Amino acid sequence: MIDSLSSTLAALADPTRRAILARLSRGALSVTELAEPFDMSVPAVSKHLKVLEHAGLITRDRAAQWRPCELHAGPLKEVAHWVDEYRRF
Amino acid sequence: MIDSLSSTLAALADPTRRAILARLSRGALSVTELAEPFDMSVPAVSKHLKVLEHAGLITRDRAAQWRPCELHAGPLKEVAHWVDEYRRF
Repeated sequence: MIDSLSSTLAALADPTRRAILARLSRGALSVTELAEPFDMSVPAVSKHLKVLEHAGLITRDRAAQWRPCELHAGPLKEVAHWVDEYRRF
Repeated sequence: MIDSLSSTLAALADPTRRAILARLSRGALSVTELAEPFDMSVPAVSKHLKVLEHAGLITRDRAAQWRPCELHAGPLKEVAHWVDEYRRF
């Protein structure tokens, strides 16, 4: 059983996934919209979204027809709290 | 070529490696001293130290006979800077 902070950090350890979060920080987007600027296929983006969703960093509204992805910043607070301990160095 | 922030986050995505950093934040330690409380073999701890060293999170003084490991918090500043962008959520 992987702890939640480890799962969050592993999900963030990829530049594409961090770029997806940055885009979602400006508002909800569909998978197709997310795939556009990355020059990646929808299935490739979907794989990254699964990792982000598993880590609790995004939520997806499966009820809405366009299934928007939304940023869920909760796990980032845990990262911020952890790194705060090292700010004095 | 993996970017430095991804390399740092991947190195941090392990509870043992974060525990090693926490101990080094209180002062330099040898590999043997680091291995003690983890109930891990020295080679197992050495593997984790290699990942941390590769990410620039620790330095090792190879000149000193006891080869102390020291925290190098530089890459953590990049993590703190990145996560700061999400504090408003």
